[in-house]
Amino acid sequence: MTSKRVFLNESEMPHAWYNLMADLPEPLPPPLNPGTGQPVGPADLEPIFPKAIIQQEMSPERWIEIPEPVRRMYTLWRPTPLVRATNLEAALKTPARIYYKDESQSPPGSHKPNTAIAQVYYNKQEGVERITTETGAGQWGSSLAMACKLFGVECKIFMVKVSYEQKPYRRSMMQLWGGRVTPSPSRETNAGRQILAADPDCPGSLGIAISEAVEAAVCDPGAKYALGSVLNHVLLHQTIIGLEAEKQFELIGDSPDVVIGCVGGGSNFAGLAFPFIRRRLEGRAIRFVAAEPRSCPSMSRGQYRYDFGDTTRLTPLVKMFTLGHSFVPPGIHAGGLRYHGMAPLVSLCAKLGLVEAVALHQTECFEAARLFACTEGLIPAPETSHAIRTAIVEAIRCRETGEEKCILFNCSGHGLCDLGSYDKYLSGQLEDYEYPQQKIDEALAELPQID
Amino acid sequence: MTSKRVFLNESEMPHAWYNLMADLPEPLPPPLNPGTGQPVGPADLEPIFPKAIIQQEMSPERWIEIPEPVRRMYTLWRPTPLVRATNLEAALKTPARIYYKDESQSPPGSHKPNTAIAQVYYNKQEGVERITTETGAGQWGSSLAMACKLFGVECKIFMVKVSYEQKPYRRSMMQLWGGRVTPSPSRETNAGRQILAADPDCPGSLGIAISEAVEAAVCDPGAKYALGSVLNHVLLHQTIIGLEAEKQFELIGDSPDVVIGCVGGGSNFAGLAFPFIRRRLEGRAIRFVAAEPRSCPSMSRGQYRYDFGDTTRLTPLVKMFTLGHSFVPPGIHAGGLRYHGMAPLVSLCAKLGLVEAVALHQTECFEAARLFACTEGLIPAPETSHAIRTAIVEAIRCRETGEEKCILFNCSGHGLCDLGSYDKYLSGQLEDYEYPQQKIDEALAELPQID
Repeated sequence: MTSKRVFLNESEMPHAWYNLMADLPEPLPPPLNPGTGQPVGPADLEPIFPKAIIQQEMSPERWIEIPEPVRRMYTLWRPTPLVRATNLEAALKTPARIYYKDESQSPPGSHKPNTAIAQVYYNKQEGVERITTETGAGQWGSSLAMACKLFGVECKIFMVKVSYEQKPYRRSMMQLWGGRVTPSPSRETNAGRQILAADPDCPGSLGIAISEAVEAAVCDPGAKYALGSVLNHVLLHQTIIGLEAEKQFELIGDSPDVVIGCVGGGSNFAGLAFPFIRRRLEGRAIRFVAAEPRSCPSMSRGQYRYDFGDTTRLTPLVKMFTLGHSFVPPGIHAGGLRYHGMAPLVSLCAKLGLVEAVALHQTECFEAARLFACTEGLIPAPETSHAIRTAIVEAIRCRETGEEKCILFNCSGHGLCDLGSYDKYLSGQLEDYEYPQQKIDEALAELPQID
Repeated sequence: MTSKRVFLNESEMPHAWYNLMADLPEPLPPPLNPGTGQPVGPADLEPIFPKAIIQQEMSPERWIEIPEPVRRMYTLWRPTPLVRATNLEAALKTPARIYYKDESQSPPGSHKPNTAIAQVYYNKQEGVERITTETGAGQWGSSLAMACKLFGVECKIFMVKVSYEQKPYRRSMMQLWGGRVTPSPSRETNAGRQILAADPDCPGSLGIAISEAVEAAVCDPGAKYALGSVLNHVLLHQTIIGLEAEKQFELIGDSPDVVIGCVGGGSNFAGLAFPFIRRRLEGRAIRFVAAEPRSCPSMSRGQYRYDFGDTTRLTPLVKMFTLGHSFVPPGIHAGGLRYHGMAPLVSLCAKLGLVEAVALHQTECFEAARLFACTEGLIPAPETSHAIRTAIVEAIRCRETGEEKCILFNCSGHGLCDLGSYDKYLSGQLEDYEYPQQKIDEALAELPQID
């Protein structure tokens, strides 16, 4: 029997993260101060991030060492297995080989702690006592809460109020790990109070929660802020996924022809793909497919432009594929993919033709997730189902052409806290959304004219 | 850095299950027909179980080969890692070494599929088209549903109505894997209709659900019934846990002094302990501790007697530690531990002095679970928290005595579908129950006088 799961020993876990910026043929356009139009410098970021993180955000170095205490904490669940989806292959009657990197086995159930652990470590090193953040459905908030607890740092999470009320499981998880969870908008910040004054019943949004978390960090000398996707340092920390996968493929003498990940902010896709994009830049023929929801198609239908990272225009301007910061995606079940923009590094890769995008309806993704669960056992997160759908489409194409491709996707998280969404799918209550072009054009028209 | 997690390759996964009956100094008292008082023969069980399972239930063989298709399906999540709880050790400042076998990584999140996969395989081999079962909170039902889907057998689950309504997540999981889930009592069986005629609002019980599932199997020529704990063949299938652990300890040159598991029906405890009890019978000094809830203390306060396996007196009489089949434990959050009896094989081990029992309150167990989650990351099931509490007590004793013991416990499942219970614990809403002796005496007085 061939081995279904490929493991690495802890000693084989990578000692450095990979920084794709060092190898791209074009430099990444710098973030800009929206007031002056000038590039943002390290000093501009110091009120919210520790110095080590700012350095990583801007570093030109190819390899950045993973500190030993971070590696040690990673061993709570890393290295993660590379799994051959043999049962799925059989069900699809495909000549393709389908592999997935299983990031669902971390305690919070996703890839998010790869960066949470690293960020908390650097904050702790610089004497930060509290870290603030925002969370929607709670994947990021729970990962940061766990990381803070493990390193002995306080954690303050502004959770979008509607999720706080509708998703008590993730809230309990954060609280079990010692996180202080506040429904947002709250009365604890000026931003929150202003919103509540205008609309006492405001259900909240990720944009509002970001404003509250940033304000809470800036106003508290013992606190800093942490973000769970989009930024370069977050993508950097996630490259441990692809670096491990590369070693695992070497062990079994195989290598991927197509690398697939779902994209919201872009970090799980980047984490798996970037080490393989390095090989593509060296000349190897590998395709990269970013799977996004049709209801929030930043790469498929957005523009490569300077835009704000948040809805409320607090952040620097970053150059990225965007639907416009005022774009409000509908409430699909893959909450982690509802972001108007795309990580600048992933966006640059797309612009350079290194990464393709596909946009998928949620029902077709749940259908793929069901097939995956019924053959491989694992119940994937709704976000992850976008990657699975894409892998299945590739595998079916191989059946038709007879190509024996090697397909790799990132199993970014499990769906055990999302079974309510599956219930809706199974009972036929899920709706698909296609955004009218006019709405996208309207949001894009609000973008600042810098290019 | 020493290795936190010890893996086995798939080729190192055991090829046979271990049957403790072959090595015990006393034979297991046979199950009896309650009408005749005579031992139950294979033919008596054929209406509900396939022949291969009945043979295993009564087999004197020490080793029973694991069929290749079962081993292949096990590789969806097996071998599971043996993990050194180094962060927990540090928090406890104990000189003890604490290890756990992580059975929480299976797709349904517990050890249950170890037997579900095997049982469905044997049913499929004998042409069974449908398998019926009962489930309370849903751990067993979801494992059986997954196994049925993987082998292409239909699955019919009678789920205790109050859980069906209050625990929709586990129900969705079963349905995603194709299981047909019916709230029990139902109108689909005579047993259910009788109960509903007397009490249309009956919330159901495991006893009633067993009656419905057995009736549904007996009345359908294409169907058989499956049970998730207690019986010898179930415990047999679970021994893969301990057999893997034994190999993993050999790899790192260590071996356990104390082996701990939580007990409801007894299968996860037996699965880890039996291969090590074999070593104890060979002369090695190993202690075995079964951790049960104080609210359902079958080993601590029950008697070793012949009793019915179910509340409604449908099953054969089995000799076991029991609180009496009419004993109704209070609604603690470790639903999987609410069983009036104890597996006959575990009971015999206790009677022979091979296994000790401890009885724990649920709040002290949740406290232990929180410490575990805050140091090791993993959020354990409420059932598993009983094993963790016991391991922590042992480790603290080592701190006091200076003994460098090696402690091993079974991490039988994760708590990601039980976060509502954690919420109650964190908000101080959990109650502890101590059963009055009089109630236990009353239930024991109803036992048949056979001994």
